Amino acid sequence: MVRGKFITFEGGEGTGKSTQVRLLADAMNRSGWNVKAVRSPGGTKVGEKLRSILKTREEGEELTAETELLLFGACHSQMVERLLKPGLADGISFISDRFFDSTMVYQGYARGLDLEMLERINAFSCRGLKPDLTILLDIEPELGMRRSSIRAAGTGALENDRFDSETLAFHTAVREGFLTIAAKEPERFRIISASGTIDEVAAAVKDCVNHEFGLEIL
Amino acid sequence: MVRGKFITFEGGEGTGKSTQVRLLADAMNRSGWNVKAVRSPGGTKVGEKLRSILKTREEGEELTAETELLLFGACHSQMVERLLKPGLADGISFISDRFFDSTMVYQGYARGLDLEMLERINAFSCRGLKPDLTILLDIEPELGMRRSSIRAAGTGALENDRFDSETLAFHTAVREGFLTIAAKEPERFRIISASGTIDEVAAAVKDCVNHEFGLEIL
Repeated sequence: MVRGKFITFEGGEGTGKSTQVRLLADAMNRSGWNVKAVRSPGGTKVGEKLRSILKTREEGEELTAETELLLFGACHSQMVERLLKPGLADGISFISDRFFDSTMVYQGYARGLDLEMLERINAFSCRGLKPDLTILLDIEPELGMRRSSIRAAGTGALENDRFDSETLAFHTAVREGFLTIAAKEPERFRIISASGTIDEVAAAVKDCVNHEFGLEIL
Repeated sequence: MVRGKFITFEGGEGTGKSTQVRLLADAMNRSGWNVKAVRSPGGTKVGEKLRSILKTREEGEELTAETELLLFGACHSQMVERLLKPGLADGISFISDRFFDSTMVYQGYARGLDLEMLERINAFSCRGLKPDLTILLDIEPELGMRRSSIRAAGTGALENDRFDSETLAFHTAVREGFLTIAAKEPERFRIISASGTIDEVAAAVKDCVNHEFGLEIL
């Protein structure tokens, strides 16, 4: 059995990660791959419960940055051991909407937690598992936020999503955080501009995946 | 405002921790203290949600030891910052049914996670807050397990409590773990035998608290 591939999409708000995850998973499945789309936080039954805790603003009891980090870690630990490792060994590929790089960026670069502690907790929770390829969708924070609020206005999702209510300064720190960690691991990261149309970005993603895995997989 | 006291009860199954927490809190409140009884996991709204995740066996998706540890850490982080620190500063005392020593013992000494990583996560999640006094209720594992199963049979709670279904070897490792960490911090720990009646143990707890805080508080 050939081991599956583990691909993650990273980037700030409004970069179209969820859409591109779905499009890539559909394209790979049509090409004969066995691909599952997942998300972080989430991915497992326990992970989805933790996602709900992370996305809900509890009156008078805002989550501390440390609590957030530890909940993401718990989510990843469960996902790695109960979903990704056995699935990859069975030949299933996974495409995840965010993974531990988001934890590093949001809790570390943007919220200021100690980066060394973050790396240790990420390594501990993922037990060494890293994505084979991480696609960073990059966009100007102003454009990303505008897209994100248009989407939220359309779905009514804005009010309950804690991570959509941050300021521009925060989004700028997030973007810089992603670019910093991408520069540290150039063999794993590919940066794709998210400022084009959905189809343009999808075409760039497809080229990237074909190139990275050394064959016409799509 | 005089800072409140933070007292924790630790020990294995069937040592009567919950009962003694309640009795001590009642006695201190009758003596004019402002005391709240809390528990770990739990303590806050978020903590109670995490307690429910930790106590539920999810079909086909057992929690990994790492996930458990990170969920306990998240619970403690939230409890320390949103409940204990502000409360203690306001003169409220807290008595907790378990705290980070249980994480150290169950996930470390009993389940084998790396003790240094555990200490780091405990320190990270509690930001240096330690109990003023930790009362370790100690009992022979066989007696503790017998008491624990009598209690569970009476309440029907056994089936859903993951931590009551472990073996004698596990309970022995738990007891030894608690005695080991108590020996490392003799200034914080007091060991009280839990083999007597509820009233006998409560009397010993009362003597201990009076002695530790240097006055007749009860």
